[in-house]
Amino acid sequence: MIKKAIAVMTSGGDSPGMNAAARAVVRTALYEGVKVYGINNGYQGMLDDDIEELTSRSVSDLIQRGGTFLGTARCPEFKTPEGRRKGFENLVKRGIEGLVIIGGDGSLTGGSLLSKETGLPIVGLPGTIDNDVWGMDYTIGCDTAANTIVDAINKLRDTASAHRRIMLVEVMGRNSGWLAMMSGIAGGAEFVLVPEVKFNIDSMCEEIKAMYDAGKRYSIIVVAEGAGSAIEIGKAVEEKTGIDTRVSVLGHIQRGGSPTVEDRMKASMLGEKAALAIISGASDIVFGFNEGKVVGVNLFEAVNNTKTLNPELVRLARVLA
Amino acid sequence: MIKKAIAVMTSGGDSPGMNAAARAVVRTALYEGVKVYGINNGYQGMLDDDIEELTSRSVSDLIQRGGTFLGTARCPEFKTPEGRRKGFENLVKRGIEGLVIIGGDGSLTGGSLLSKETGLPIVGLPGTIDNDVWGMDYTIGCDTAANTIVDAINKLRDTASAHRRIMLVEVMGRNSGWLAMMSGIAGGAEFVLVPEVKFNIDSMCEEIKAMYDAGKRYSIIVVAEGAGSAIEIGKAVEEKTGIDTRVSVLGHIQRGGSPTVEDRMKASMLGEKAALAIISGASDIVFGFNEGKVVGVNLFEAVNNTKTLNPELVRLARVLA
Amino acid sequence: MIKKAIAVMTSGGDSPGMNAAARAVVRTALYEGVKVYGINNGYQGMLDDDIEELTSRSVSDLIQRGGTFLGTARCPEFKTPEGRRKGFENLVKRGIEGLVIIGGDGSLTGGSLLSKETGLPIVGLPGTIDNDVWGMDYTIGCDTAANTIVDAINKLRDTASAHRRIMLVEVMGRNSGWLAMMSGIAGGAEFVLVPEVKFNIDSMCEEIKAMYDAGKRYSIIVVAEGAGSAIEIGKAVEEKTGIDTRVSVLGHIQRGGSPTVEDRMKASMLGEKAALAIISGASDIVFGFNEGKVVGVNLFEAVNNTKTLNPELVRLARVLA
Amino acid sequence: MIKKAIAVMTSGGDSPGMNAAARAVVRTALYEGVKVYGINNGYQGMLDDDIEELTSRSVSDLIQRGGTFLGTARCPEFKTPEGRRKGFENLVKRGIEGLVIIGGDGSLTGGSLLSKETGLPIVGLPGTIDNDVWGMDYTIGCDTAANTIVDAINKLRDTASAHRRIMLVEVMGRNSGWLAMMSGIAGGAEFVLVPEVKFNIDSMCEEIKAMYDAGKRYSIIVVAEGAGSAIEIGKAVEEKTGIDTRVSVLGHIQRGGSPTVEDRMKASMLGEKAALAIISGASDIVFGFNEGKVVGVNLFEAVNNTKTLNPELVRLARVLA
Repeated sequence: MIKKAIAVMTSGGDSPGMNAAARAVVRTALYEGVKVYGINNGYQGMLDDDIEELTSRSVSDLIQRGGTFLGTARCPEFKTPEGRRKGFENLVKRGIEGLVIIGGDGSLTGGSLLSKETGLPIVGLPGTIDNDVWGMDYTIGCDTAANTIVDAINKLRDTASAHRRIMLVEVMGRNSGWLAMMSGIAGGAEFVLVPEVKFNIDSMCEEIKAMYDAGKRYSIIVVAEGAGSAIEIGKAVEEKTGIDTRVSVLGHIQRGGSPTVEDRMKASMLGEKAALAIISGASDIVFGFNEGKVVGVNLFEAVNNTKTLNPELVRLARVLA
Repeated sequence: MIKKAIAVMTSGGDSPGMNAAARAVVRTALYEGVKVYGINNGYQGMLDDDIEELTSRSVSDLIQRGGTFLGTARCPEFKTPEGRRKGFENLVKRGIEGLVIIGGDGSLTGGSLLSKETGLPIVGLPGTIDNDVWGMDYTIGCDTAANTIVDAINKLRDTASAHRRIMLVEVMGRNSGWLAMMSGIAGGAEFVLVPEVKFNIDSMCEEIKAMYDAGKRYSIIVVAEGAGSAIEIGKAVEEKTGIDTRVSVLGHIQRGGSPTVEDRMKASMLGEKAALAIISGASDIVFGFNEGKVVGVNLFEAVNNTKTLNPELVRLARVLA
Repeated sequence: MIKKAIAVMTSGGDSPGMNAAARAVVRTALYEGVKVYGINNGYQGMLDDDIEELTSRSVSDLIQRGGTFLGTARCPEFKTPEGRRKGFENLVKRGIEGLVIIGGDGSLTGGSLLSKETGLPIVGLPGTIDNDVWGMDYTIGCDTAANTIVDAINKLRDTASAHRRIMLVEVMGRNSGWLAMMSGIAGGAEFVLVPEVKFNIDSMCEEIKAMYDAGKRYSIIVVAEGAGSAIEIGKAVEEKTGIDTRVSVLGHIQRGGSPTVEDRMKASMLGEKAALAIISGASDIVFGFNEGKVVGVNLFEAVNNTKTLNPELVRLARVLA
Repeated sequence: MIKKAIAVMTSGGDSPGMNAAARAVVRTALYEGVKVYGINNGYQGMLDDDIEELTSRSVSDLIQRGGTFLGTARCPEFKTPEGRRKGFENLVKRGIEGLVIIGGDGSLTGGSLLSKETGLPIVGLPGTIDNDVWGMDYTIGCDTAANTIVDAINKLRDTASAHRRIMLVEVMGRNSGWLAMMSGIAGGAEFVLVPEVKFNIDSMCEEIKAMYDAGKRYSIIVVAEGAGSAIEIGKAVEEKTGIDTRVSVLGHIQRGGSPTVEDRMKASMLGEKAALAIISGASDIVFGFNEGKVVGVNLFEAVNNTKTLNPELVRLARVLA
């Protein structure tokens, strides 16, 4: 049972909904009569002692904002035991008895080491648009990112269909094709290239040529960055098909924007859950949503296992294309 | 086992994602080698014999569109056994052996009677933004509608905070407060008035006055139409608080717009499921999502039971406000 | 020539772009080596001495925000000479030698009296979505508001065309039909009802019935609030035509939202112009855009003359419908 | 005076508002009692005789659509006199006495040759997002494209400020920096790189480092494609500053999307003007907007002169950054 204070931080790549999650952590803790500190700029701020107490007002007018008001940063020093020890002491001296970390795989790994070495109770929340955390089918921000990509695809369709062109759009996902697959299916893309599934560019180009001969006016190809550079693939496709090909690289646009209702709601629910859990003495858990319900996954399992792409999505992409 | 043909129709109030669902029904049936007919303008079109065969091309460039390309209409005549018999015969003469109905409670009720009286296999999909169908926690269109409302609330916040005003926004939901509750929580509303929960306007106004005395610059109140007229409530609030109050009535804007990724995906999955089920001989089932998974609910139970509002939402609204 | 300091305030109804204008006033003044004070909550803040010095940083991350960071409020006391004198003294004691007022007709009138009575140099900027300030064809915020309305009309079209319905949308404009006319034409509305033009509801309903008999699936009617209550008009239209009619009342949504490029650009240019003018000793001018160029209108003429609706718009609405 | 028929086509890169312009051409001509033909896929369709008569209904539900319903395509054959002669004959045999061409510089050049060689009356409309047509300060689609870019910049700001990163966004504009400059100023970018203005990457990087040392959390750099590859420039910036740098290449997203109110209105006015002009016997004119008014520019001057970037924009970018 925590009596005094907890801290909350965001770390790694930001994702839309991190603010909603942090807001829920803060308001729930205060509602429970526990102090909350915000750690700025992730582990770097923990080392730099850049930590301040938060009030209910500190998190107002925030739920609709993209990014993270706490900031986030790389921190090589925290990768060393000495670094983690130093950060831990900055928490201890404020009477912080537990920490909620909102971030992706890498950030949660840092947290698992901090917990192992110092015994500090830690609860994680999956803040990443990649939706690649083991043991759950939802991570904070993935819905907003998928909608941002689909908005882009809608715009590409306008101009693609005017020109009989092939449009490639490169989306995030170094190791995970979830975002590409979701936005590809929802965007009505003809092909989705993901790191998890081998693809044959020659047969794809044959299919495209056949479609165009059959009168199709355009096709859209979504490429997860982990499947290769859309710019390189686009050059090859144009060469092999002889059809005008254009490429968009969305980049960090996918990380921004006001979060969707789903990301705001689920981030809020997870933030509340994380605050209640750590206050009640829990540790080494990551809370996420799976099949529509909040689930708690062991922190060490979460960071040591790799999530695989739902084959159902791969199948659906093929049937509906 | 259906060998020849099925039909698909949309009925009742339209909702974003109906096109994605119909598209998936069509493409899945064709993929399975079964003909598909589209019935225009709901039951009215069934009576008027306004029915045409659909191809894969008929549903291209459609997944991103709001509304329904099949149209929908009121049809008093279909409320009579004679009417339903007449409609049935228009299906039979085309060799249509099963029907997929995409619509809300009322439309599914019509379908259940048609099934009872004629033995025509019927599978329903919940097409309504109200998310009020029994046995499931998701209906096609509810996510897009909630996001449309939250966009409106974001805009109201800008101007409310400039003026120290109270903003009321009336949203859809005659019998169900789901939409109001979701958009209220996600929009960071101070109060959400729903038909399922009694509210005391005097104590609400007292709370508001206290907030403003404490320095709050604005408050937003989401009102489900079933909880009363926002215009009337707004007048009372302005009188009791003495604070400038303004009202927006979103109306059918909530029904339109390009569907979100969630509505496109779930509508597509449900459309595929409905087509496969009816082709394989199923009947009298409504497919929806519950806790993240596709569920089949008995058609008669679905239309004869009433869904209640998730109390978790009511609680969350209170904690996070 | 002003050497010491100027002040900037927003007043009356807020409009998108007010922040961009205030930001430009601040940065230009600082660039010229002149202090800038921000007056919070309009004339009320001037009386309450709620005034603070602004830095370049005070206005960063602001150009994309709706509303106004300075706030605005009603202030009956300022309508009295004593009130204005009191406000004036709060400026004098800070060495404020000139004032930039961003607001609508009413706010500029207050400014003109302040200038007359105290000799304080005043420059106005037209901050209103109504685009009803005499001597100019553009006011800050009108482009964003028109786009917000057209987005709403796009959504209404989806559902209207699914249902063969008549959709009415009530927009702002007590005395001016500009906003209704612009959004009506751009939204492809069939009818636009404005205060400046008499309309005959019976002949309108006849036209609508004729259209529907000719196969039209829907019609959209934009109603400026000054032309009557859309809810009342909608009831009459439904009665006379016998066609389902639905009404949306957009309300203050039209005032919010991130400003468009045009509003950001023109507000920035006007803010710069206002700062340079007042610093160089000008007074009693309102700067706006007319025919694509910045124009300066005499403050007293601006508030004493009434702008009329461009008949070209009325004609265009008829030709293109 | 044209008595019988005119034709309308879109050519070159599409731009949002081309549909609104074509719609206005069609409705105005019909209103004047003149037949209108639509030429599909630009000059290629003229050669392939892919030409059809249009009705008022052909252009309904179109004003809000991006792209062009007429399609557009490259056509090398039209670059030869024989090709143009062949296309001309396909018009003549239908009694087409005049042609409205909606497109960019290249497309208008093709039109000027067709006019010179065949004497066919031709009126052009500037359909390009680059806003680079000589003699006017507005071309159809530039406002929508600028708003699309600014939406992207808003999203980048969220994540840039979370990470203390430098964000580069590459926008269209091979020879013209207008789009980059407009969206850079409106988006609050720190730097805008355009083909018309030399820039020194070293001094830019020095400035950036100074800003960050002074506490700035992020900076955004808009790069017109004509100023160099954002990906290459980004690599250099990261190297020289040692600050994390990320790049987005928006690509053809900038060409799509539902047109803004300004693009719909101005495209509609220009379409009406073009139809009236050609019907009344005019030829070899391009109509655009300059300083808020419709202007007619000689077709040959328009295609033989080069528009320069408004230095006012360059100055403003510096003052407001």
